Amino acid sequence: MITLYDMKTLHTGTRRGLSPHTWKVRFALRFKGIPYTLKCIEIGDIEATAKSIGALPTGKKVDGSPRYTVPFIQDSKTGKIISESFEIIEYLDVAYPETISMIPKGTRVLQGYFADAVYKIIGTQILPVYASAMPTPYQTRETTEWFRINRPQFTKLSPEQEKEGWEKFRSELGELAKLMKETDVFAMGDRVSFADCVLFGQIIVLKFFWDEETTEWKEMMSLHGGRWSRLITAYYNLPDVEIQPEDPSS
Amino acid sequence: MITLYDMKTLHTGTRRGLSPHTWKVRFALRFKGIPYTLKCIEIGDIEATAKSIGALPTGKKVDGSPRYTVPFIQDSKTGKIISESFEIIEYLDVAYPETISMIPKGTRVLQGYFADAVYKIIGTQILPVYASAMPTPYQTRETTEWFRINRPQFTKLSPEQEKEGWEKFRSELGELAKLMKETDVFAMGDRVSFADCVLFGQIIVLKFFWDEETTEWKEMMSLHGGRWSRLITAYYNLPDVEIQPEDPSS
Repeated sequence: MITLYDMKTLHTGTRRGLSPHTWKVRFALRFKGIPYTLKCIEIGDIEATAKSIGALPTGKKVDGSPRYTVPFIQDSKTGKIISESFEIIEYLDVAYPETISMIPKGTRVLQGYFADAVYKIIGTQILPVYASAMPTPYQTRETTEWFRINRPQFTKLSPEQEKEGWEKFRSELGELAKLMKETDVFAMGDRVSFADCVLFGQIIVLKFFWDEETTEWKEMMSLHGGRWSRLITAYYNLPDVEIQPEDPSS
Repeated sequence: MITLYDMKTLHTGTRRGLSPHTWKVRFALRFKGIPYTLKCIEIGDIEATAKSIGALPTGKKVDGSPRYTVPFIQDSKTGKIISESFEIIEYLDVAYPETISMIPKGTRVLQGYFADAVYKIIGTQILPVYASAMPTPYQTRETTEWFRINRPQFTKLSPEQEKEGWEKFRSELGELAKLMKETDVFAMGDRVSFADCVLFGQIIVLKFFWDEETTEWKEMMSLHGGRWSRLITAYYNLPDVEIQPEDPSS
């Protein structure tokens, strides 16, 4: 069984989970049909939890010390512990070769650059926009506090800056949509791949951040001819592979 | 017969041509084995030449008027005139289906994003570095003048800024190299694609800009385990398909 680690929210059930990078892995696991359990921990517990199971850091902090991030996984079938979404999904392709490959042969470099590009669109445009709406009713107190201390720039946007960010995000995502065929569901056309994990991860977080009933989410789903809603639908049309915990607070 | 348009240099024969985007097309034509003639024009004649054959603009100037750029092609076999390197290479895949496809099925979006990412590496890091070494003995007087007026920022770099640019370029290209397998020649492994047109175009221009015997070019060819020299070699190992003009000044 695979245990996947994410950051805690006050949502329960399949709506739990805060990191777009963890959602990439959840998307891949669902398309692969591999069951998993999700462990949601407070943002301040990531480092200790990662160390306790032997998950490696994924980068360095400004002071040079190792930085630990979600997602990381522990796979009881193989005994492996893997950090970082691209590494995890690449591992799943190799360890579960009977499932659909998310990094089709020859596309590794291209998938990596696509992920970087999409992260730049979201990170520079939309992340500050939704972060400025914090705290939401679904955030834990610890997450709110972490953002207040570590990302103060996100909570100081003027309405004009929010509007500008949202417009840039829409426009850059529109450029991506233009490269795709009108009827395509996936970035590679009729074939799912890591590129879709990336897009799905960034978009689905907005759903649980804004909540399904908000104008923002509805606008997101109608954007670019409803292209992104088709990706969301493709995910929900597949059987759920997440095994819900008996203790709903975990 | 395909006629391909580029900007003039004082180089002759197959060393002619200044634009990394035109070199993308030359790379594709050589891998496809499609003969072509290269017409090199002065930078100030691009717009009039494009208009005279009906080649479309590729963007807009700051004042909103249409901007014309190289490359553009005229294909006497089909009567088509196409502007912009990605569009041209996509056209060649369709019009010459018996040749190797540069945009393998399903990779269109990924190839487009890769091209953007590589252009950002070159455009922001190395272009100012080599532009600051202008004028070279191979530049036409008109090109020198154009750069002096239109890109004054490129000719005002301090030695420290040049050094910094070169180091950032090396480091970002190194990140790309890390995504590739040690023995891979192409971005997709053993299969050539548009991604290689992009890399080749940016690198080969440095060769003719610096000249083959310079320390800079030799350093470039030894970078990252000689990875980029293998790409250059793959191109030169194929038969030349460029038909040289009788008038060497054209």
